[in-house]
Amino acid sequence: MKALVYRGPGKKQLEEMPKPTLRDSTDAVVRMIKTTICGTDLHILKGDLPTVAPGRILGHEGVGIIDEVGAGVSRFHKGDHVLISCITACGKCEYCRRGMPSHCEQGGWILGNAIDGTQAEFVRIPFADTSLYLIPENAEEDAMVMLSDILPTGYECGVLNGCVKPGDAVAIIGAGPVGLAALLTTQLYAPATLIVIDLDDNRLIVAKQFGATEVINSTDGKVVEKVMFLTAGKGVDVAIEAVGVAATFGLCQEIIGAGGRIANVGVHGTSVTLHLEKLWSQNITITTRLVDAVTTPLLLKTVMAGKLKPNQLITHHFALDDILKAYDTFGNAGREHALKVIVTNQ
Amino acid sequence: MKALVYRGPGKKQLEEMPKPTLRDSTDAVVRMIKTTICGTDLHILKGDLPTVAPGRILGHEGVGIIDEVGAGVSRFHKGDHVLISCITACGKCEYCRRGMPSHCEQGGWILGNAIDGTQAEFVRIPFADTSLYLIPENAEEDAMVMLSDILPTGYECGVLNGCVKPGDAVAIIGAGPVGLAALLTTQLYAPATLIVIDLDDNRLIVAKQFGATEVINSTDGKVVEKVMFLTAGKGVDVAIEAVGVAATFGLCQEIIGAGGRIANVGVHGTSVTLHLEKLWSQNITITTRLVDAVTTPLLLKTVMAGKLKPNQLITHHFALDDILKAYDTFGNAGREHALKVIVTNQ
Amino acid sequence: MKALVYRGPGKKQLEEMPKPTLRDSTDAVVRMIKTTICGTDLHILKGDLPTVAPGRILGHEGVGIIDEVGAGVSRFHKGDHVLISCITACGKCEYCRRGMPSHCEQGGWILGNAIDGTQAEFVRIPFADTSLYLIPENAEEDAMVMLSDILPTGYECGVLNGCVKPGDAVAIIGAGPVGLAALLTTQLYAPATLIVIDLDDNRLIVAKQFGATEVINSTDGKVVEKVMFLTAGKGVDVAIEAVGVAATFGLCQEIIGAGGRIANVGVHGTSVTLHLEKLWSQNITITTRLVDAVTTPLLLKTVMAGKLKPNQLITHHFALDDILKAYDTFGNAGREHALKVIVTNQ
Amino acid sequence: MKALVYRGPGKKQLEEMPKPTLRDSTDAVVRMIKTTICGTDLHILKGDLPTVAPGRILGHEGVGIIDEVGAGVSRFHKGDHVLISCITACGKCEYCRRGMPSHCEQGGWILGNAIDGTQAEFVRIPFADTSLYLIPENAEEDAMVMLSDILPTGYECGVLNGCVKPGDAVAIIGAGPVGLAALLTTQLYAPATLIVIDLDDNRLIVAKQFGATEVINSTDGKVVEKVMFLTAGKGVDVAIEAVGVAATFGLCQEIIGAGGRIANVGVHGTSVTLHLEKLWSQNITITTRLVDAVTTPLLLKTVMAGKLKPNQLITHHFALDDILKAYDTFGNAGREHALKVIVTNQ
Repeated sequence: MKALVYRGPGKKQLEEMPKPTLRDSTDAVVRMIKTTICGTDLHILKGDLPTVAPGRILGHEGVGIIDEVGAGVSRFHKGDHVLISCITACGKCEYCRRGMPSHCEQGGWILGNAIDGTQAEFVRIPFADTSLYLIPENAEEDAMVMLSDILPTGYECGVLNGCVKPGDAVAIIGAGPVGLAALLTTQLYAPATLIVIDLDDNRLIVAKQFGATEVINSTDGKVVEKVMFLTAGKGVDVAIEAVGVAATFGLCQEIIGAGGRIANVGVHGTSVTLHLEKLWSQNITITTRLVDAVTTPLLLKTVMAGKLKPNQLITHHFALDDILKAYDTFGNAGREHALKVIVTNQ
Repeated sequence: MKALVYRGPGKKQLEEMPKPTLRDSTDAVVRMIKTTICGTDLHILKGDLPTVAPGRILGHEGVGIIDEVGAGVSRFHKGDHVLISCITACGKCEYCRRGMPSHCEQGGWILGNAIDGTQAEFVRIPFADTSLYLIPENAEEDAMVMLSDILPTGYECGVLNGCVKPGDAVAIIGAGPVGLAALLTTQLYAPATLIVIDLDDNRLIVAKQFGATEVINSTDGKVVEKVMFLTAGKGVDVAIEAVGVAATFGLCQEIIGAGGRIANVGVHGTSVTLHLEKLWSQNITITTRLVDAVTTPLLLKTVMAGKLKPNQLITHHFALDDILKAYDTFGNAGREHALKVIVTNQ
Repeated sequence: MKALVYRGPGKKQLEEMPKPTLRDSTDAVVRMIKTTICGTDLHILKGDLPTVAPGRILGHEGVGIIDEVGAGVSRFHKGDHVLISCITACGKCEYCRRGMPSHCEQGGWILGNAIDGTQAEFVRIPFADTSLYLIPENAEEDAMVMLSDILPTGYECGVLNGCVKPGDAVAIIGAGPVGLAALLTTQLYAPATLIVIDLDDNRLIVAKQFGATEVINSTDGKVVEKVMFLTAGKGVDVAIEAVGVAATFGLCQEIIGAGGRIANVGVHGTSVTLHLEKLWSQNITITTRLVDAVTTPLLLKTVMAGKLKPNQLITHHFALDDILKAYDTFGNAGREHALKVIVTNQ
Repeated sequence: MKALVYRGPGKKQLEEMPKPTLRDSTDAVVRMIKTTICGTDLHILKGDLPTVAPGRILGHEGVGIIDEVGAGVSRFHKGDHVLISCITACGKCEYCRRGMPSHCEQGGWILGNAIDGTQAEFVRIPFADTSLYLIPENAEEDAMVMLSDILPTGYECGVLNGCVKPGDAVAIIGAGPVGLAALLTTQLYAPATLIVIDLDDNRLIVAKQFGATEVINSTDGKVVEKVMFLTAGKGVDVAIEAVGVAATFGLCQEIIGAGGRIANVGVHGTSVTLHLEKLWSQNITITTRLVDAVTTPLLLKTVMAGKLKPNQLITHHFALDDILKAYDTFGNAGREHALKVIVTNQ
């Protein structure tokens, strides 16, 4: 079968690989219909995740049709139309039972990382019963792909950890795909002020279209002043960090109001400075989270009810044969005005 | 001054009454601009609340301009444009400090009940600093009147107590003003299925316009069956009782799903049957609440942000001189297609 | 093997039955070491649960040694020393993943009910990976038996649903085993006032020994008055109903304070009267729950740390051969001063 | 009257000062009976809080008798025996009404800081109705002094923000008075493992006496290893930082388990390094808080019920005339084996 294979830092190829087979009785093999590319895939290609071995098929998102199930799979059958969660959950370990499968003892984020992933014609899904979701009839496949990772990530790590509530002033720092996913899902809670901050005016235009009440380009160094003006000098109730660098985490600390919450979504490569000399007395909460994808059923219901429109996040479509072009487009998101790209296996 | 005075069961008059004066240093006197009539006022007139003495000026909602403040009032000044909360909060007692001023040792719901109310040219407001809210510039006065009681009631007793969350299936039983207030504020949390149940088709048409995804006329006795169909046989996550009779509370028990919540909003005059022989094992929660009106600041922000449009609840306008007509209209809500009426003191 | 078999209303026998075998790959067969008798077993014997078919082996509590596991069991092995949960959890269905396995689509309370139970030499446990717990070294087996059902029931249905917090005034109505389990686990949260109410002075003496700060015999009809005296006229913060009849649920309604919580633990056979005409405005919460046994790991840790001493609940020991005597003793708990009895399979 | 006066960095004197008088109608003047010294007082004396002006009477804790109340004080009277909260709450501003009076627009921590404090024969208490608590009959005065600041600080900033629950593994870093206050109040929630870490063996002996299940002297550099051993390699559920330096906050980050909470209690003078490159994916929560002292009623009830014994924290007693000696003792806490000192105004 065709698959996008990581061949060491900077190297990837669309190659012919053996079709995966069942290894454990709880596995399923899924024939992929659609997948997408994640910012994390770009990190892997840069060599930032040394645990990903060359030869690995990338990808941890997508929808498909079940091709085969092991004897221990009871909830899915050959032919089922399924959504693949980016988080593989054994459903049995302490972490899974605490609702934190991101730290599953045997699973977690392993697809396209510790095991072969979804950017291929077929993929093996361990613990299928607790790692797949049946796609409702009438669902739009492209929208479903957004439920594999990006929407649960924005929602769980940003919105739920931020405890956004109606009437709040919320700032989202970073208007890339994951910041925009937080922007879409934040609106499930009717905040009054929804500020998006980025360096790129094009992204801010998109943020405005997606529901931001205010957008701020932070290049002029006046972003703190502007946020304070918009919040009557109090700072925001919730700051969602969706970039992953020290400067943006620092910005969150400057704009957070007393009693507020900083929800980190960004993947950080270096430590940051925490200004406890100022914040120790400010009654703030800082959260981190690797997505658990436990809210997929909830988000699926909001999508099916039309309360959340994930298709807004999709800007480009490619065939699996053209996945290298898809990577080029997604890798040059600024120039290409790309958000999420759909890669279809016909 | 003119005032609507309760003169015993079935009797009310628009009378000339003495203008209220400051009694305690924490009082304010407010010149009323707009008020409204509550279902509770009708209950008083029926004689259902024997604690309301004849001679009492009715009304516990409205907006106005501060005419005078006592020496102990520090947050408001003569001339301030204010919203009057239906709940008077001393701000000091155990209940106020627990966030439950509905049970304030010296306040609670006393306006138009234990003390004279707002259906008059002037009203005395005890504990003004903690019982009034400054109206923002650009606010629409009619909308503000809805924040005195009906919106906090629907929101706190129905939506917050029901813990509505995105994707939920919610049923609201009763499409009168308070049920519709719950309907509007439930949508701050993006439920997927929002069923409104009533006996009156006109009200159900309104409910549909206000955002119900499904409406059911319960006259045919098939409401349980219909709700079960809409929820794939599981029952609803949240049932909001907004009528106040045994039959509707009974219906909530029939349609609630395992793990669900029944939030009672209705004012009940008699006991009801609780089917613990069925529900003891269903992991359900039942809540009751007299509105605390502690979410008024939150709701005010959602209204100012355009996320909540209270004007939808207003169907009729009257001058204070015509308040008896206003009562007629409101008292015959079905025939008049009336929801909330605004009574203006020019 | 020997087993206690239900033979229709009023009839039970210690019989020779076939040893259970694995049916599904996720099953384990456990050789029982110790079990106990639950109040529910008595209900079954009275014929109150018509779904329990004659021929059923009773019992849903106990500890043992794994004798055999199916191919799909990954977390347990032959020879493991295990605690059997009264709730069988598939770990995959919507309810299990919501943390509510009491309503598991394939499990829930099925042992000694829909399938054969633990009052036998061997028992088959479906979904072993998510329905058994490894017993730590140094654990006392008798204590572990109390973790199968009674302690999670008192804790989840009573204490957690009651949201007991330090300083609270808590009343427990009913000092039978389950009320006493609530009494023990309530003390994990340091309530200030802990009132136990019962009709039997012997049980109240036990309650006092178990940590009640006040005990009230309710036979004289002055219980409401006494509770009000003990709570300065405010009523209790939490009332835990551990009897299951209309009168005791009624008592909870009379003694609950404004803003309080009534946590129902009792199994009710008939409906009760809910005084909404009084309670609609009292900001109270009523909860019901079939134990989910999701807190077993938490309780296990508190037992191992010596913060909870379940052995206090055990009054009698019997051999499996004498289980009919054990039933006699437990069935005449008042006369025998019995709480929980341990039945050992040597 | 006599008072301990700050006279600039390093300088303090017991001086004759004018007796305070009522300034606002909401003030009370309290004749002090007992006060104590806080670590913050030592910080002020070092000159670390430049906002404290020379000439300021220090102290923000204590009990006394009301000498005089303003016309606007309704809940207290001359002669009342009262506990003074370290947090002055107006009861009216947004922050007070959100339950966060630490950030009260007119109050907060102002005693012995922005206004004269309690280390004197008399003190003026603004907003007396919402900043004082009536002392119950039979209460022990020394214990009450611990409720002014140190117990609410340990409880709110450490235990509540840490969300300690039964069965948890909790580490408290720092066994000074505030760490020990967290240690005492953590036990209201029955954690299974309660590790206290400090550099001073004497303090660790005290910690053990106060209920620590494990104590670790961190001088040998093996503290992380030891904590991991005690927690089966998982790290703690809750880490409470009660020192206020970068190294101890760093330690919290090393020992916190996935899904855990770091509750900062310490007052920090410099920024710290936050290892987001490791923690971004660990689902942790970090909290900061200036005590709000909103749990004083709850703690008072637990003290009166004997569930919390604050006297354990008191090691020395002095007369107000000897307050300079009291400062010497408290300032050399290690050498003097001092925890909290009581200063009595006879």
